Amino acid sequence: MLEIFFEIRQEMECLEEELRKIIRDADPLIKDTSLHLINAGGKRLRPAFCFLGGKFFNYDYKKVLPLAVAMELVHMATLVHDDVVDSSLTRRNIPTVKAIWGNKISTHLGDYLFGKSIKLISRYENTEIVKVLADTSVKMCEGEIQQLATANRPDQTVRDYFYRIKRKTALLIAASCQLGAASCGAPRSIQRPLRRYGHCVGMAFQITDDILDLVADQKQLGKPIGSDLRQGIVTLPLIYALKHSPRRDRLVEILIRGQKSQDEVEEACYLIRSCGGIEYAGWVVRKYVESAREELKNLPGIPARDTLDTVARFVGVRKF
Amino acid sequence: MLEIFFEIRQEMECLEEELRKIIRDADPLIKDTSLHLINAGGKRLRPAFCFLGGKFFNYDYKKVLPLAVAMELVHMATLVHDDVVDSSLTRRNIPTVKAIWGNKISTHLGDYLFGKSIKLISRYENTEIVKVLADTSVKMCEGEIQQLATANRPDQTVRDYFYRIKRKTALLIAASCQLGAASCGAPRSIQRPLRRYGHCVGMAFQITDDILDLVADQKQLGKPIGSDLRQGIVTLPLIYALKHSPRRDRLVEILIRGQKSQDEVEEACYLIRSCGGIEYAGWVVRKYVESAREELKNLPGIPARDTLDTVARFVGVRKF
Repeated sequence: MLEIFFEIRQEMECLEEELRKIIRDADPLIKDTSLHLINAGGKRLRPAFCFLGGKFFNYDYKKVLPLAVAMELVHMATLVHDDVVDSSLTRRNIPTVKAIWGNKISTHLGDYLFGKSIKLISRYENTEIVKVLADTSVKMCEGEIQQLATANRPDQTVRDYFYRIKRKTALLIAASCQLGAASCGAPRSIQRPLRRYGHCVGMAFQITDDILDLVADQKQLGKPIGSDLRQGIVTLPLIYALKHSPRRDRLVEILIRGQKSQDEVEEACYLIRSCGGIEYAGWVVRKYVESAREELKNLPGIPARDTLDTVARFVGVRKF
Repeated sequence: MLEIFFEIRQEMECLEEELRKIIRDADPLIKDTSLHLINAGGKRLRPAFCFLGGKFFNYDYKKVLPLAVAMELVHMATLVHDDVVDSSLTRRNIPTVKAIWGNKISTHLGDYLFGKSIKLISRYENTEIVKVLADTSVKMCEGEIQQLATANRPDQTVRDYFYRIKRKTALLIAASCQLGAASCGAPRSIQRPLRRYGHCVGMAFQITDDILDLVADQKQLGKPIGSDLRQGIVTLPLIYALKHSPRRDRLVEILIRGQKSQDEVEEACYLIRSCGGIEYAGWVVRKYVESAREELKNLPGIPARDTLDTVARFVGVRKF
């Protein structure tokens, strides 16, 4: 567990238990693959946001728990399907389900986990919760499909990029914050600032992810450097570089190539870094972190608000 | 449209319109791929069962329509993902989404269509509808994963087979019949016989599918003969043959082979046909059709009941 989640450490332990309980009676193959995913860890950001969101109104962790589990399952489902699509062999330094069990299992396992999450959510009387989750999941797919449609294309704007990362990442985090409160019966006036906070944190989180893909220590990150670029995914530092790098033409040349060699990927990473693409993206992250922290002022001053503030600051400086 | 659905021809036209309307404003790539799927046709069995189920209580086709669309979208989503898993290049004599656009798009498109279906279903006040659909989708994945786990294995029982086809096929048809009624507010006493009818029809439908894979006219079926066997999927005629064929050892030898040549697949199909495997499976189909028709006696004697009776008989004799 991340230290910043100290306030909800008991809830996070319950979450781990629940995640395991939910697949306890499943078929052996489902159990093995799901346990592999659960044991691979992760930051459990989305469940944490659910619990922290719940704290702002009539908090009862038991009311939040099914939602928190569901949100982590949705996240896991997208990771498993992303690994099919990206052909990733490791994630968090651990072999992916796809690497061990193959594409077929991964495809069905993702569907299974998503189905389980809807099943958990369907327990809530409040039909708004299913609506928000369904809408989020549709938009997440839109983001992924957009990413595929624009792969290797240098003619992308910052706006296109924001459209995509909002769908890929920010919406699920926004929904986690909002629905955490909704699951405890919070009114719109509490849900709305939480959703906006989650949106900003989610955007900052994804841009940081995209920066780390270009500069991080490979071991700490748990996956190879430059993997976005290798797949032709155009991220914010690259968009900046495509506009400001003195070697713009060379960048375009590498980007539009279907298959990129390791040397080309490293050259492109260097070109992006050397023209200030990282600094620019870092500045955008800081703007989103500021907006997220600003949004918290619309919420009651309880300890959870301080934790959310710390999370926002962490997202802006994390190295993994 | 199948002629047997004459009673609900207007509803079925609305369904086609709605299917198109739902992706009208989608991104170009989502629109193209979804339209390809919609235009590829299909029997639209599941929506038809929704409308026919609705006729048994306070029927209003507008109340059933979102459900009917959702059920077809779930079915389409599973087809797109199955094509990723099975590496199928044609379905209904038309290239699959996977064949034209590849695995990546197919994976996300399946998720998108499933998400859309949950979104449609979340409109209903009756939370039972989301619960049944979520439960069905989880079990469908269990069936598919079980199928992968047991591929190429000769030690399977009729019971294993029923477990699998119930999940793969029968549950979604049962849910369509039941929820069609539920969407109009029908009581359990109407929902239950409809669900049981759907279960029996679904089982008969899948067994017939498995028979056709061994005996059908390839052109009429729209996909190559023996494709189950080629993938190591053990169906009812094969289970019978593995017990009763005088050339059992040869069948096992072919089945357990990871890669099967065209000659081997054809030889195995011949061995299954020549020992009575098709006749046995045909007998089981008739039993399920009888049970389905029997179940209808627990429902009011309206014209929809006659249509459901005709559908049950059709499923038992269809050649495509």
